[in-house]
Amino acid sequence: MIDQTKLPTALEYIECRDPETVFAAIRRLSVRGAPAIGIAAAMGLVLGIRDFGVRPGVGDEGGGGHEGFVKVVNRVSDYLASSRPTAVNLFWALERMKRCALKHMAQSIDKIKQAMLDEALAIRDEDARMCHAIGRHGAALIPEGGSVITHCNAGSLATAEYGTALAPMYASHAEGKSFTVYVDETRPLLQGARLTAWELMRAGIQIALICDNAAAHVMKRKGVDVVITGADRIAANGDAANKIGTYGLAVLAQAHGVPFYIAAPSSTFDLDACDGDSIPIEERDPDEIRRGFGVLTAPVDAPCYCPAFDVTPASLIAGIITEKGLISPVTGDSICETLGS
Amino acid sequence: MIDQTKLPTALEYIECRDPETVFAAIRRLSVRGAPAIGIAAAMGLVLGIRDFGVRPGVGDEGGGGHEGFVKVVNRVSDYLASSRPTAVNLFWALERMKRCALKHMAQSIDKIKQAMLDEALAIRDEDARMCHAIGRHGAALIPEGGSVITHCNAGSLATAEYGTALAPMYASHAEGKSFTVYVDETRPLLQGARLTAWELMRAGIQIALICDNAAAHVMKRKGVDVVITGADRIAANGDAANKIGTYGLAVLAQAHGVPFYIAAPSSTFDLDACDGDSIPIEERDPDEIRRGFGVLTAPVDAPCYCPAFDVTPASLIAGIITEKGLISPVTGDSICETLGS
Repeated sequence: MIDQTKLPTALEYIECRDPETVFAAIRRLSVRGAPAIGIAAAMGLVLGIRDFGVRPGVGDEGGGGHEGFVKVVNRVSDYLASSRPTAVNLFWALERMKRCALKHMAQSIDKIKQAMLDEALAIRDEDARMCHAIGRHGAALIPEGGSVITHCNAGSLATAEYGTALAPMYASHAEGKSFTVYVDETRPLLQGARLTAWELMRAGIQIALICDNAAAHVMKRKGVDVVITGADRIAANGDAANKIGTYGLAVLAQAHGVPFYIAAPSSTFDLDACDGDSIPIEERDPDEIRRGFGVLTAPVDAPCYCPAFDVTPASLIAGIITEKGLISPVTGDSICETLGS
Repeated sequence: MIDQTKLPTALEYIECRDPETVFAAIRRLSVRGAPAIGIAAAMGLVLGIRDFGVRPGVGDEGGGGHEGFVKVVNRVSDYLASSRPTAVNLFWALERMKRCALKHMAQSIDKIKQAMLDEALAIRDEDARMCHAIGRHGAALIPEGGSVITHCNAGSLATAEYGTALAPMYASHAEGKSFTVYVDETRPLLQGARLTAWELMRAGIQIALICDNAAAHVMKRKGVDVVITGADRIAANGDAANKIGTYGLAVLAQAHGVPFYIAAPSSTFDLDACDGDSIPIEERDPDEIRRGFGVLTAPVDAPCYCPAFDVTPASLIAGIITEKGLISPVTGDSICETLGS
């Protein structure tokens, strides 16, 4: 896997041949983005059971039979789950892998291993199909010769392929369309500058990196056809929490008559949250602002307000692009209709 | 003078005893801000003529009399003027100093020296009075217990005292009011994080440093009473050019019902520019975005769009606070009326 901590200055790969390497890669954010973490963990579990009964010492704890195999599956799964305790997709992928093992328990251990490898690949392929479906449903929003603004990174580095927020751009590029993506650098952690700029450039898509505060000027002077961002969590009424700065971008888009879209998988919806007010806003370490680049750029004791997310109300969102289709207009009813289909 | 290049990590002073030290301080941006540069240059010229006829070797070129003195004045003035070739205030202050010398040419050289020192001090004092007048006219906009957002730095570091954009805050603080200033860090060059945060904290004013992209969230969740920024140039109809990000902030303020004010001296008006469209927008080096902190935070060859300024239309400006009074509403007529008074 790509070591994302080295981007954008170096493209280095981490070769994972055991769960320990996968664990370390997840923990130190070499792999990030919910789908990518889930896929990495599933593959890590496969690596952890691969040598069971083959290499001496592996699976000693259960005596080597099916009972011992289950113990190893659980041990490696628990171990990988502890790499990032708040990553929901990590637990989801590992649970799915364990269910797969149990389902095949009547078969030989070799057959179970094969089923688990197939399951891990299925998780990856489903994610790739989901990204492509989002791309397909969103590509029409980008006109030939047009321009897009995006914020943060929900791209191919976070998923198996294409990404979510960037999928309409990759799909448009694959269709041969020419367009420009204005990439918000996305303070404080600069995911736009470090990751989105890197992956779009690598794909041959034309970009212009901008400071977050230049978006309004770009909309006014350059003409922008559409704003597309991802989302971390979408409430039942369509209010969407995403990286700090998204809400401001949506307000600016409305003021300039530019449609604002969110592209996110259906798993992003949290239908238990009735609206955006019920989504808690995490506050981050002030040093992300004061020394966000490893360099002190503010008084060392400057009080900061550093929210990780903001909430964009459904009223500002022209549509939500999911793998199940485009939800537009964004209402509780239209969301239920698309997600239920 | 304070060496601003060392802020906010160190407070160091530069002792200037000759024009060379002043020249170097202006050139390497140890002193910045139009009024502060003008004052420094005027003082630098005084240092350059102080030893004329006293110390051997000074003023040799003209033989030591009045003619020689004028030559030294012109030589030192030309030298200081070349320190920052685009700083209008620098030329203005030096021209004023030369006019002062010529006006007193009938008197003794000692008397001319004294008149020039008085003139330099007058430039400083007039600037301080102008800052205080802006503060007086703007202080009422900040309610007790309220909060303000500001962008970039037009504070005491850029002027003789109080600053322009920050003057209403200093004046409110001097009145004993308690309030919070949300300080935009102001990418790419971080004048908010480096300078505004530093000087407001030093004055004992409560601040919270924020990323530029958090302003909309702060307006929505925290409640903001007023936005006050400076301006680099204001057209005859009230359209105002200022640091990139100002226009977006004004749009966000309007969307949240927060009044947006500009605080700037009357010298900022360029009545030859009929509106904002006639103000050219300088584009800066892409490396200000890509390696804004001496650290590469984007692909080394990422195309960037880096405008230095944007233009806020008069329609978004609730008022312009000048030393001559508050211009509100902002129209061509109200501007003429206040500036003419």
